[in-house]
Amino acid sequence: MTDTEEKTGKAEGGRGGRRGASGGASARRQARSGVNLVSLPYIHRQLDPVDILSTEAVEIIEHNADILMEEIGVVYSDDAEALKMWKDAGADVKGDRVHLPKGLCRELMKTAPSSFTQHARNPARSVEIGGKTTVFAPVYGPPFVRDLDGARRYATIEDFQNFVKLAYMAPAMHHSGGTVCEPCDIAVNKRHLDMVYSHIKYSDKPFMGSVTAPERAEDTVKMAQILFGEEFVDQNCVLVSLVNCNSPMTLDGTMLGALKTYARANQASIVSPFIVGGAMSPVTVAGTLTQVLCEATSAVAFSQLCRPGSPVIFGTFATSISMQSGAPSFGTPEPAQVLMGAAQFARRYNLPFRSGGSLTGAKLPDAQAAYESANTLWPAMAGGVNFMLHSAGWLEGGLVSSYDKFIMDCDQLAAAQKFAAGVDMSENGQAMSAIREVGPGSHYLGCDHTQNNFKTAFFASNVADNNSFEQWEIEGELRNDQRANKVARTWLESYEAPALDQGVDEALTEFIREKKDSMPDAFT
Amino acid sequence: MTDTEEKTGKAEGGRGGRRGASGGASARRQARSGVNLVSLPYIHRQLDPVDILSTEAVEIIEHNADILMEEIGVVYSDDAEALKMWKDAGADVKGDRVHLPKGLCRELMKTAPSSFTQHARNPARSVEIGGKTTVFAPVYGPPFVRDLDGARRYATIEDFQNFVKLAYMAPAMHHSGGTVCEPCDIAVNKRHLDMVYSHIKYSDKPFMGSVTAPERAEDTVKMAQILFGEEFVDQNCVLVSLVNCNSPMTLDGTMLGALKTYARANQASIVSPFIVGGAMSPVTVAGTLTQVLCEATSAVAFSQLCRPGSPVIFGTFATSISMQSGAPSFGTPEPAQVLMGAAQFARRYNLPFRSGGSLTGAKLPDAQAAYESANTLWPAMAGGVNFMLHSAGWLEGGLVSSYDKFIMDCDQLAAAQKFAAGVDMSENGQAMSAIREVGPGSHYLGCDHTQNNFKTAFFASNVADNNSFEQWEIEGELRNDQRANKVARTWLESYEAPALDQGVDEALTEFIREKKDSMPDAFT
Repeated sequence: MTDTEEKTGKAEGGRGGRRGASGGASARRQARSGVNLVSLPYIHRQLDPVDILSTEAVEIIEHNADILMEEIGVVYSDDAEALKMWKDAGADVKGDRVHLPKGLCRELMKTAPSSFTQHARNPARSVEIGGKTTVFAPVYGPPFVRDLDGARRYATIEDFQNFVKLAYMAPAMHHSGGTVCEPCDIAVNKRHLDMVYSHIKYSDKPFMGSVTAPERAEDTVKMAQILFGEEFVDQNCVLVSLVNCNSPMTLDGTMLGALKTYARANQASIVSPFIVGGAMSPVTVAGTLTQVLCEATSAVAFSQLCRPGSPVIFGTFATSISMQSGAPSFGTPEPAQVLMGAAQFARRYNLPFRSGGSLTGAKLPDAQAAYESANTLWPAMAGGVNFMLHSAGWLEGGLVSSYDKFIMDCDQLAAAQKFAAGVDMSENGQAMSAIREVGPGSHYLGCDHTQNNFKTAFFASNVADNNSFEQWEIEGELRNDQRANKVARTWLESYEAPALDQGVDEALTEFIREKKDSMPDAFT
Repeated sequence: MTDTEEKTGKAEGGRGGRRGASGGASARRQARSGVNLVSLPYIHRQLDPVDILSTEAVEIIEHNADILMEEIGVVYSDDAEALKMWKDAGADVKGDRVHLPKGLCRELMKTAPSSFTQHARNPARSVEIGGKTTVFAPVYGPPFVRDLDGARRYATIEDFQNFVKLAYMAPAMHHSGGTVCEPCDIAVNKRHLDMVYSHIKYSDKPFMGSVTAPERAEDTVKMAQILFGEEFVDQNCVLVSLVNCNSPMTLDGTMLGALKTYARANQASIVSPFIVGGAMSPVTVAGTLTQVLCEATSAVAFSQLCRPGSPVIFGTFATSISMQSGAPSFGTPEPAQVLMGAAQFARRYNLPFRSGGSLTGAKLPDAQAAYESANTLWPAMAGGVNFMLHSAGWLEGGLVSSYDKFIMDCDQLAAAQKFAAGVDMSENGQAMSAIREVGPGSHYLGCDHTQNNFKTAFFASNVADNNSFEQWEIEGELRNDQRANKVARTWLESYEAPALDQGVDEALTEFIREKKDSMPDAFT
């Protein structure tokens, strides 16, 4: 047993322990399949995050949020327990409105860890979330897919598993995500079981839990306990789940139920104001940030009321509304500013931060999709996002998971990861020998330094075409998305599942069967 | 006469003075045409530029460049005068190799202005280049176009004029550029006359001069003198021209001829190492930056030998080579790092900086084109580029000027300009009244603050589709480039030329006729 295995709980006893396949075996299988993919570890960003707000602006917004939290308060709806917890903590509770005295949330947030490890069943895939790390996770939530034949249709569990497989294979995808698409062919009250099982079975990367009802969150925790062991789960984060606020200024009972379940189980939630600026927040960036601060800090503080020290992520999902059509628009400048401003506040409070993703309103993986995705990825990387949901596959404002775009986005994530590694200043990086060897008016193609470095020197895209026009013409004049489609097919054909301990697999299957048998199907 | 007009030389007497149309008249014409475009001034970036290199890294690279400039030197080929100038300035000249003692270039560069105004014939379109400003200029150099019918063919003077017209109309395009495409239907030795004339006639934005031969640079200066007056041109910058180095470590006679002509006429050159990393520089970022520093600082210093105090721009054009195919690739992480590192050195030496652009190796304006363009635009904005050539229209590694992509890129430039304006922290920006008015669980669509701000609050793209899937389907399921094609057609149909003084027009036409009559056509 290695040190790493020990740390992640195999020695903890209990039902499961860690029984996944090692990264080495996975790499060997991939090498046999002819698709040469090497998983990259999560990112340690070498650049300092960019502050978009002046110190004065930060203080104004925080001051304004303090006023609003006390004066207007935050609604905690359909959850009497939550209201009592807030009252006991010193808030002024009137009806379901929680008025928060200045500084109370900031004080409560202090017990939340600034960074934490989310463990994967393969310890080589565990991720650190916080500080200067960035973890990429797939698209979350779409009910539709654009499939490999270009059809737009409701997603199925087969699609779900396919996206889990693609995320498993994509080198710069560090996380298996959660609802990579909605498996609409399975009953609403049962599909969370199949989703969690699919993440465990078809990937060895960390994953997310169900939040659509408290009992589904509990099922998720139980399945994690089967996989990792009860004691290990109580002492370590193995789940990160997504709890959206109902902006403006409201948290509802469903989300609070999931938040309480996970926090008490010492599992992380991302508490995210989900904001369409101009509809769910003011039309200005500073106004939106003020509201984000009220919502997110109140929810983070609440997680610490549930269990002090439990991991939690300050989240922000912002888009702007088209004032002509009322539709949300993505990849525009104002949400990028909100993202970077919110990141600055998360840093101020020493909290991990979630935002970003390859967001777009486009219906096809065309230039609009790419511009808009890049326009979210860049500020997210510059702003210092720690956990980036929706980082691949998102299309059509989040209604669609796209196979083609998943591949295209993953290529961009790999590029972002290379950029974030910073400039190599080693002697080899300085390359003085090369410049001396080549001299004026010559070229570097054949020199020793180039020969020694060419395999890893430059990022190489697996979907971009940089051939001559003539060569591209001969090869069928393909667009980027058409090349990505071929890559997606090749990956799925060569996919091999990481080994899963048979006892764990059977225990999970049995748990799911029992659960499913205990209730009739519900489709709403 | 307004103050602004006086400052830009109308009162200077001489042949031309400023006789362009005012921005107001242009706006009225555009309003009549039904295309509502309002030109934006050049950008004042509100964010500090991002330093990608540590102080230690900067010092190592500068130290290495000092060693190489002295030990290896820079070749000044086919220009005996330049070699003599360097010898007189204290360099050790051996053959055509100029060995530069440590610190000589840095000392000479001190007379170059850190920022300067390039005057346009319409003073409202004059641009400041340096410090925290950014000026966007169109694609430069392609011999081919992708035309409005999708055909790829040699460019003509009609295409050239069309791109000048589109750049004139694009709100966030601050500059008319130079060789927006090569008018291949006109003799090589005469086409510069038609290009410069087209910029003057069809736009009132600032423009670039010819660099393909010293006498063509002289013709450009003479035409500028007809437009602005001789004395005004001698005392003010009205031309910015592009002088590429022949990397590694060489400046040739042709480019030196243009550089000398412009510097002595007090006109700006951009001195740009044009680098395909791995071929024309080492395969590493630090090595490439070291070479860039040798080439650019030597050329900037030389411009100051020609005329101390003349404006000059530190330039860098970097791409990486595909080690598989040998083709250059664009929008990859390493050239982005080179760009930001070179920008950092330009700031260190208080010089305006040129780099960036909407670069791509894609053959079509597809997702590859968009991702790659965004991957150059973002680091260029973050790095603090002052003059951004190729900011719209570039396709296929610079072989093609694309009408569709020109429109798509201009839309992105407008978004970048909005982002660069920073966060509005005014009372209206803080939006406390809105949050108070709306309260928890409601929405902001109808509140006073939203109504008062909705027209300008959010960036609105003119090519993105954010409608519902169903609406998009009804409207023909168009891709981004197909919508851009329609916009390009509409703009060209509604174009109206800015008024040009008839006397100036006739004088320019006569100058061109005389020049053309004085020599036979040359096609190579």
